[in-house]
Amino acid sequence: MIRLSPEDITTFFLALGLLLGSARVLGEIAIRLRQPSVLGEIMAGIILGPTIFGGIAPEIQQLIFPHEGNFLILFEGLTTLAIALFLLVAGMEVDLSTVWRQGRTAGIIGTTGLVVPFSVGILLGYLAPSTLGAEPGASRLTFALFFATAMSISALPIVARILRDLKIFRSDLGAVIVAAATLNDLIGWIVFAVILSLMGEAGHGPGVGMTVMLTLCFTVGMLTLGPWLMNRMIPWIQANTGWPGGILGFALTGALICGAFTEWVGIHAIFGTFLFGIALGDSKHLREQTRSTIDQFISFIFAPLFFAGIGLKVDFAAHFSILLTLNVILIATFVKLGGSLLGGRLCGLASRESWAVGFGLNARGAMEIILSLLALDAGLIGERLFVSMVIMALVTSLCSGAAIQAILNIRSGSRFLDYLSSNGFRSHLEATTPEGCIEELVGVLSKGSKLDRVRVAKAVWERETLMSTGLSNRLAVPHARLEGLKSPLVAVGFSHVGVDFNSRDGFPTRLIFLILTPAGEHGTQIEILGDIARTFHHSEMVEKALQTNSLTEFRSLVRTHEPDQPDQSRPSG
Amino acid sequence: MIRLSPEDITTFFLALGLLLGSARVLGEIAIRLRQPSVLGEIMAGIILGPTIFGGIAPEIQQLIFPHEGNFLILFEGLTTLAIALFLLVAGMEVDLSTVWRQGRTAGIIGTTGLVVPFSVGILLGYLAPSTLGAEPGASRLTFALFFATAMSISALPIVARILRDLKIFRSDLGAVIVAAATLNDLIGWIVFAVILSLMGEAGHGPGVGMTVMLTLCFTVGMLTLGPWLMNRMIPWIQANTGWPGGILGFALTGALICGAFTEWVGIHAIFGTFLFGIALGDSKHLREQTRSTIDQFISFIFAPLFFAGIGLKVDFAAHFSILLTLNVILIATFVKLGGSLLGGRLCGLASRESWAVGFGLNARGAMEIILSLLALDAGLIGERLFVSMVIMALVTSLCSGAAIQAILNIRSGSRFLDYLSSNGFRSHLEATTPEGCIEELVGVLSKGSKLDRVRVAKAVWERETLMSTGLSNRLAVPHARLEGLKSPLVAVGFSHVGVDFNSRDGFPTRLIFLILTPAGEHGTQIEILGDIARTFHHSEMVEKALQTNSLTEFRSLVRTHEPDQPDQSRPSG
Repeated sequence: MIRLSPEDITTFFLALGLLLGSARVLGEIAIRLRQPSVLGEIMAGIILGPTIFGGIAPEIQQLIFPHEGNFLILFEGLTTLAIALFLLVAGMEVDLSTVWRQGRTAGIIGTTGLVVPFSVGILLGYLAPSTLGAEPGASRLTFALFFATAMSISALPIVARILRDLKIFRSDLGAVIVAAATLNDLIGWIVFAVILSLMGEAGHGPGVGMTVMLTLCFTVGMLTLGPWLMNRMIPWIQANTGWPGGILGFALTGALICGAFTEWVGIHAIFGTFLFGIALGDSKHLREQTRSTIDQFISFIFAPLFFAGIGLKVDFAAHFSILLTLNVILIATFVKLGGSLLGGRLCGLASRESWAVGFGLNARGAMEIILSLLALDAGLIGERLFVSMVIMALVTSLCSGAAIQAILNIRSGSRFLDYLSSNGFRSHLEATTPEGCIEELVGVLSKGSKLDRVRVAKAVWERETLMSTGLSNRLAVPHARLEGLKSPLVAVGFSHVGVDFNSRDGFPTRLIFLILTPAGEHGTQIEILGDIARTFHHSEMVEKALQTNSLTEFRSLVRTHEPDQPDQSRPSG
Repeated sequence: MIRLSPEDITTFFLALGLLLGSARVLGEIAIRLRQPSVLGEIMAGIILGPTIFGGIAPEIQQLIFPHEGNFLILFEGLTTLAIALFLLVAGMEVDLSTVWRQGRTAGIIGTTGLVVPFSVGILLGYLAPSTLGAEPGASRLTFALFFATAMSISALPIVARILRDLKIFRSDLGAVIVAAATLNDLIGWIVFAVILSLMGEAGHGPGVGMTVMLTLCFTVGMLTLGPWLMNRMIPWIQANTGWPGGILGFALTGALICGAFTEWVGIHAIFGTFLFGIALGDSKHLREQTRSTIDQFISFIFAPLFFAGIGLKVDFAAHFSILLTLNVILIATFVKLGGSLLGGRLCGLASRESWAVGFGLNARGAMEIILSLLALDAGLIGERLFVSMVIMALVTSLCSGAAIQAILNIRSGSRFLDYLSSNGFRSHLEATTPEGCIEELVGVLSKGSKLDRVRVAKAVWERETLMSTGLSNRLAVPHARLEGLKSPLVAVGFSHVGVDFNSRDGFPTRLIFLILTPAGEHGTQIEILGDIARTFHHSEMVEKALQTNSLTEFRSLVRTHEPDQPDQSRPSG
């Protein structure tokens, strides 16, 4: 019996820990820079892999991330599992009913957004394979098919996240984008499955014709019978097994078995988990809590391991070709925008909206990366094109959100936490009158800034005397708009004796926010006030806040209890 | 570069799916029989492994669960990861403050509950190693040390679950049991770590003296500095990183790195994850949601894979020795009860309570199984003793809950769902008056039973006329106690027009429960009524219930929204 040695286990755990930790840290930095976290996660792998760490200290890099032996088998197995489970979550995001609801518009844009990139892709791939980075020995047709698919697929999970961030997920335009992306994804993956089976390695799987037939039957079955079956099975499982173990076990078991099936058929395991995810996620009986347990553990633990693993696999510096990368990015963007604009014109969308749809569908994110990795593993493309595809997927995703925001002129909502200044926290206010509290908080804020203490306190107090800002729930929000202020400033203080802010419910005020906003920006003040009111809607939350002792503890509390916002929930049931 | 073949991936996914699925199904059956689910999970492995499946169809069993090659490496790696993560969760259950709070009592019982089994164990292990199943070549001293540890460790996670099920987790006695078990576990594992390092394989780890020293330093550091550091780091992480990705990433990264460290030191990775779990779980800043995401995914996905994997590893039939098993069970139980009774007497506990503590600490559960598996892998014990130890761990866990319940004379609480009869669901009541509804529901219940329709309806109506059972929230709970009824019966019906039950808030009643209980049992009726009121405390829940169309959907809804019960939450913070 083969046994893992203690060295194998040490390496395995250490490598996983280092990858996960750095993926998280760099992912967080990416988010700070308003970029998708997947960018940071891939960077973590590039840094720890052959590109940087391996370039500086190849021996130590090899010691921690061996390129051979049991570690490699373990790591490949785990990342294969990770990506299959990530596709389960991606499938759960797919909402078939959105497609039906948007009917004609989604159908047209989904079709043109797929057909245009695919046709142009197949043409270019066939005519100029070497310019596009095909390997010398590759079959022209197979390469053209791959390139066409790579140009066509959008990244539904990324698209959905961008739309949610911009709060237009539930708008008509958002639904059109999501529906079109869903169609793109579904058809694109099916086409790719067929390609994989066409080039099926000899001796594996049940033969090309059989593979195609089984794939189509399985797909149709999962999309029609699947949801129907789930709607009957999930209530039964929830009614008769332990909660939430039963439903979690069912979800993972089903995904694994479907993955094993599609892998056996001759396509990849991810198709099985993806289709199972669609059927599972479609059920209105699946509880939000189950979704989020599966989603969080997989998205935050498994997916980063997979993406960091990509950087570990390939030397990004050695295989980087600026020309090829630019070509790929430009072609990908042009064909996707072209297809969407054509579709938008056909169904009478305003030109501005068509552009937004185009940039929405242009986000390639994780999907194109996974596609390219499969093609790389199958020997269909070389590392040079792989690197270009990964960069293309990242760049198109980076641009997508910003472009939609600019085109539709959307301002992102203000959270008060973003403006809470680092010295704007006072856990024990000394003042016992509203005027005193305001002066104390203004004093705190003006430390180290150019604020004119007296003038600001006067402005806030004048506003306060017009109408008290004491809300219910022991909360008060004195505020003022100031000429010359560049960006909003917020301070918070706790009174442990209570101050009479003439509150609505008559109780003395304990939690006092001072809010200063630039004179021009009317909306910001209202947004910040609304955000504070929502955050401290429950008196329980006020109680917890009063118990925090530092700005960090206070921020930690607020950030882990984000108020519910109707737009952030799922589109259906 | 080594690559996993499609066959490897197919086998890997299929095997994981089958194991997880059958572990879940058999785990559920175990729960139905009021046994811990780990029993079913191990059974799943025994059925799919060499014992049963392999006995019937060895070729097919080998095909699905190969005994060699990449699959075995993958499976070993994944189960090692699974058990290390399971120990992370087990560590998070440890609450050091309970130990401090129970101070003297916990200290005394924890000590005697450890010292007595350990001394007797070491004596027996040294004097009669072959009777106790030591391998012929094994060192007498090392074996005696292992046997002593195996007799001493309790299974804190199982103990905690049993006490929670019995709703005495928060009682003084519950706290004493938990505190003593925590002490047992902590010291027992440290001793075992020392044993492992003593027998450390040549050439691995930094040498025995160094191993012991590093182990002790790490343990002391994690138990003292650890919680202090966590209390500073967790708020910072929650305040400055994405939620919940940041904290989840931190928890898993930390566990993996600590696991790699202890594995490198020469003991096992599980010690590192366990100690990290204790430090992490101790922090009051860790949110309940984070705990449950980690706990659920690991307990319901990773842990079952590990336990099912045990059955896959060993042929339980071939290595089963009834004499050895009986010996092990009897010795384990006697020494643990003896130690607890002695401790109980020393600190003046009532004899009944001492017995309850003894049976509580006697539950060995997962811990003894993990310990034995490590000993088996290390070549310290053979498969015969391993099988006996696994059975001992299961039997002592099975007896623990029932014994405590009998000794303390605890009745388990009644949930109305347990008595909802299979034909007691009516989604459209035809009646429009209270009396009509009662008659209709009685009619439904009496179908196929010996209930006297007229007499029962009369009894319920008489009770109803005394004082209306219409509650607020569109709920009514007509009920009666009946002579001759053996066990409670509940029926539920929805009125879509609303019925005037003279409800407290004046709204017409839509959701009507009929509750019949045996005349003698006063408590049951009150418990069922209370349970219904708690379950439908929020009007939202009533709305959702009214939308269900079958008994299965209704049960599914109620079971996935268990009402909060103060006793089921964590002991602290």
